[in-house]
Amino acid sequence: MEDKTKITYPESEKVYMQGQLHPYLKVGMRKVNLTPTVVVENGKKVMTENAPVYIYDTSGAYSDPEQKVDLKKGLPRLREPWIQERDVERLTEISSEYGKMRLADKSLDSLRFDHITLPYRAKAGKQITQMYYAKQGIVTPEMEYVAIRENMNCQQLGIETYITPEFVRDEIAAGRAALPANINHPEAEPMIIGSKFLVKINTNIGNSATSSTIEEEVEKAVWSCKWGGDTLMDLSTGENIHETREWIIRNCPVPVGTVPMYQAMEKVHGKAENLTWELFKDTLIEQCEQGVDYFTIHCGIRLKNIHYANDRLCGMVSRGGSIISQWCKIHQKESFLYEHFDDICDICAQYDVALSLGDGLRPGAIRDANDRAQFAELDTMGELVERAWAKNVQAFIEGPGHVPMHKIRENMDRQIEKCHGAPFYTLGPLVTDIAPGYDHITSAIGAAQIGWYGTAMLCYVTPKEHLALPQKEDVRIGVVTYKIAAHAADLAKGHPGAEVRDDALSKARYEFRWKDQFNLSLDPERALQYYKEANHLNGKYCTMCGPNFCAMRISQRLKDCDYDAEIENTENE
Amino acid sequence: MEDKTKITYPESEKVYMQGQLHPYLKVGMRKVNLTPTVVVENGKKVMTENAPVYIYDTSGAYSDPEQKVDLKKGLPRLREPWIQERDVERLTEISSEYGKMRLADKSLDSLRFDHITLPYRAKAGKQITQMYYAKQGIVTPEMEYVAIRENMNCQQLGIETYITPEFVRDEIAAGRAALPANINHPEAEPMIIGSKFLVKINTNIGNSATSSTIEEEVEKAVWSCKWGGDTLMDLSTGENIHETREWIIRNCPVPVGTVPMYQAMEKVHGKAENLTWELFKDTLIEQCEQGVDYFTIHCGIRLKNIHYANDRLCGMVSRGGSIISQWCKIHQKESFLYEHFDDICDICAQYDVALSLGDGLRPGAIRDANDRAQFAELDTMGELVERAWAKNVQAFIEGPGHVPMHKIRENMDRQIEKCHGAPFYTLGPLVTDIAPGYDHITSAIGAAQIGWYGTAMLCYVTPKEHLALPQKEDVRIGVVTYKIAAHAADLAKGHPGAEVRDDALSKARYEFRWKDQFNLSLDPERALQYYKEANHLNGKYCTMCGPNFCAMRISQRLKDCDYDAEIENTENE
Repeated sequence: MEDKTKITYPESEKVYMQGQLHPYLKVGMRKVNLTPTVVVENGKKVMTENAPVYIYDTSGAYSDPEQKVDLKKGLPRLREPWIQERDVERLTEISSEYGKMRLADKSLDSLRFDHITLPYRAKAGKQITQMYYAKQGIVTPEMEYVAIRENMNCQQLGIETYITPEFVRDEIAAGRAALPANINHPEAEPMIIGSKFLVKINTNIGNSATSSTIEEEVEKAVWSCKWGGDTLMDLSTGENIHETREWIIRNCPVPVGTVPMYQAMEKVHGKAENLTWELFKDTLIEQCEQGVDYFTIHCGIRLKNIHYANDRLCGMVSRGGSIISQWCKIHQKESFLYEHFDDICDICAQYDVALSLGDGLRPGAIRDANDRAQFAELDTMGELVERAWAKNVQAFIEGPGHVPMHKIRENMDRQIEKCHGAPFYTLGPLVTDIAPGYDHITSAIGAAQIGWYGTAMLCYVTPKEHLALPQKEDVRIGVVTYKIAAHAADLAKGHPGAEVRDDALSKARYEFRWKDQFNLSLDPERALQYYKEANHLNGKYCTMCGPNFCAMRISQRLKDCDYDAEIENTENE
Repeated sequence: MEDKTKITYPESEKVYMQGQLHPYLKVGMRKVNLTPTVVVENGKKVMTENAPVYIYDTSGAYSDPEQKVDLKKGLPRLREPWIQERDVERLTEISSEYGKMRLADKSLDSLRFDHITLPYRAKAGKQITQMYYAKQGIVTPEMEYVAIRENMNCQQLGIETYITPEFVRDEIAAGRAALPANINHPEAEPMIIGSKFLVKINTNIGNSATSSTIEEEVEKAVWSCKWGGDTLMDLSTGENIHETREWIIRNCPVPVGTVPMYQAMEKVHGKAENLTWELFKDTLIEQCEQGVDYFTIHCGIRLKNIHYANDRLCGMVSRGGSIISQWCKIHQKESFLYEHFDDICDICAQYDVALSLGDGLRPGAIRDANDRAQFAELDTMGELVERAWAKNVQAFIEGPGHVPMHKIRENMDRQIEKCHGAPFYTLGPLVTDIAPGYDHITSAIGAAQIGWYGTAMLCYVTPKEHLALPQKEDVRIGVVTYKIAAHAADLAKGHPGAEVRDDALSKARYEFRWKDQFNLSLDPERALQYYKEANHLNGKYCTMCGPNFCAMRISQRLKDCDYDAEIENTENE
């Protein structure tokens, strides 16, 4: 039976790299061990070792056989000792009214996570964000942690200093990178979002009014981490959002993002006109104290710009954006998200929650791309991001949406200019509207391009986009598809460690080391499955070409060598 | 029960556009009829019609309810009267020795297509290719046919002259476009391959030594045309290639390509050293007389360049390229394909078979992209394409392969320069090696980009690439994925009729006309399936957002309108 607290990868070892500035750091990576190359020379088999390949690992303790995970207790609180060294205090009770109310509600006991701890917060008047430390010239353990992660395969290539902890610090200080790490999510392994680093992907999970249980959502979260999701957004809009989120955060080894407006909207039973700043503020505090690492907030919607959406084919397609626009229109007032932006930053700064400035006016159709609605909002975001930085709050900017290929570059260039180099975080973009059911692909085409141009994080899209909520298999396909886009961008941007995996896989392919090829692939299980369904353990060829038409075999003979390898029967593994 | 001779699309009509220069021309298109928009204004429903959308149609007679297709008799011989007007003669017997031998073999009677007709050939000393006519200033019916097809939705936009028959002629005359149309495949509907036209896609089918029957291959051919394949390559390498091909050609409404080397190789029982020009020549004639519209021939492999592949991670990954290289190496001679290139052209000219200059040294790994092996061959192809044109043989150039994004542009620019503007026809390219099982996606990312840059035709890649032969479902996924890439390129290149479909689909999406949305999509069945699996006929929302969080509903209210539509229960349709 499947153990839901374990993640395994074939022929892979969980290994840890040690810190230098912070020798207690142990940065997990996945080491894929390869079989030797066997060449027949003069009738004799000659073996040559193949170096292992290191893979950036988002699976946390789940893939460490030495660590026992108990979903009821949550993951190890890795960062807690580091956080305790800072100007933080542990509260004696949670601060949000709503949080207190939920805690007091005995009827929720059966749903509640078992080991809720009291939250941390910055001491009054003290600064504790990664951006603050960076500006002070301090390299935090988190910064060294991500530097080690980012140097994937570099040491093996003899490149010792590709990403240094100091470089990480400088990028964070300048606002060009964000390291979302709420002090109340010590379970998360530090990661960085910035154009100079490996391109990251976000996955969305979450229930809606009609579907799914807490257990299913936690399962999807772990599943997303297995396939390589770098951050996870919990977009639940159904019941028991508060309790669902607690379970997810406690068991999630990657940063968790939310759209707090969704929960605020639930609190007013779907009536946007009843939203207030006080209610929203209480929601922020509630989520800060649970450990959400970044908030998507649609602060860029201005009353004067909303009507621009009327010119569009598809109006607004952002849920958060349309809700706050509705509020603005009903009250004929500037949005409280914009008006209270500094207050939002003050709250985030106390917990080191990063801001993801949501693009409420992102285009939802090819026709609507790069229009004045979208770009007016981008201008506002450029203003806001500087205000966030002034308060040492880390921030990034959300981007489209639906954009044809020839208009993608303008999105990136303009974002860099207007938003002063803040990281860009896009949803695709989808390069055509005509393929519902295949929008992971329409969007991966745009995502790879914009990632190459400099987008720091790509929000995945699943095959169910526009149609339904994704199920587990959709999450898998969505994550793998976006790992493709992100990796393609890493290659095009020239990360020195990225091509190591391509080269090792291609070498294995050429040498008919089938299992090595599969083990190095983004989805070893799927590759093996396709191969085995069609092939009968041929060893040196697949049904694609048959024995006489295998270009690689012929090509080997042209080089006067012949590789010897075969796939074993792994039916019972 | 499924009728294998019928292709249907939901709410679609087969319509025909008439020719002007050639009034007998009837160019089939798919007209998608849409439901009206229903808006509630002041409590009353107001209806507005939505114009139908025209879709480029590759499904031929199969989607015409007025036409009865009998696979045993083959498709109607649409172009035969046009061909008979030319300087052609009908042979009294087929010319190839192998073809005669197969025909005489009674044991093959049960496999043989029932209604083989005698082939046409140019009269001695006469020119009959589309390129020849174009150079003479003649607009053939084929040229007007493709002009009408290419103007998809333009008339409706008020653009009467986007692609004129004369423009088609001029592009063919200059070699910048090819219209592959063997006089012995009169069943094929004319289509054009060139950077100024809609981006086309090719699909590969064919058995290998281990798998599949003739019936299955014909079924896959029709299936490929259903989903939008513009040309079809029969890459069979197994038994009864000759008979399989006859069945496919007679029933294929799109041009058919082959790699004649595969069959030549079968004739020498897989022993490359036994290949000869005479045997290859006989194979070409055999296939010309069956009606193959274009040949992939790896004439660009030069003896002096073969060793460049030794520097590579993956050597040669082209089957045809590796076979002819093996021949060269064994005999230490220049390849007979290169030596006899003019003879090859002379044969092709007699039947108007186009040449697809195969890239035997295309890179099969990211590491091998844009290397001297690849570019040396491209130089040779640039020399050969001019020799083909001198003999009025239409030609295009095959391209990679595996190429990281930042190296794609160089491929296109260099191909245009070295090959004098001849159409480029690429396999992907795959932008990373690390995703076997998902290579339709890794390659669609590269294909969309290179299509935007000017590649005229994209060879599809299925999820089974590198692993196994594609099955029907893989063909479907591969074709739809490549339709996405090609359409994204058409949008980026600015074809005026392309965005009509995106706009109509997005409008339907915004107005909750679910069925219109699905009917306009590349795969209506898949979209509907995903929707229905998850949704319970909600009408105005899907499970993705639920009723209170649907941005498009909220957005509509912001515009003070509300669309009224619902999906019906189509369970029993």
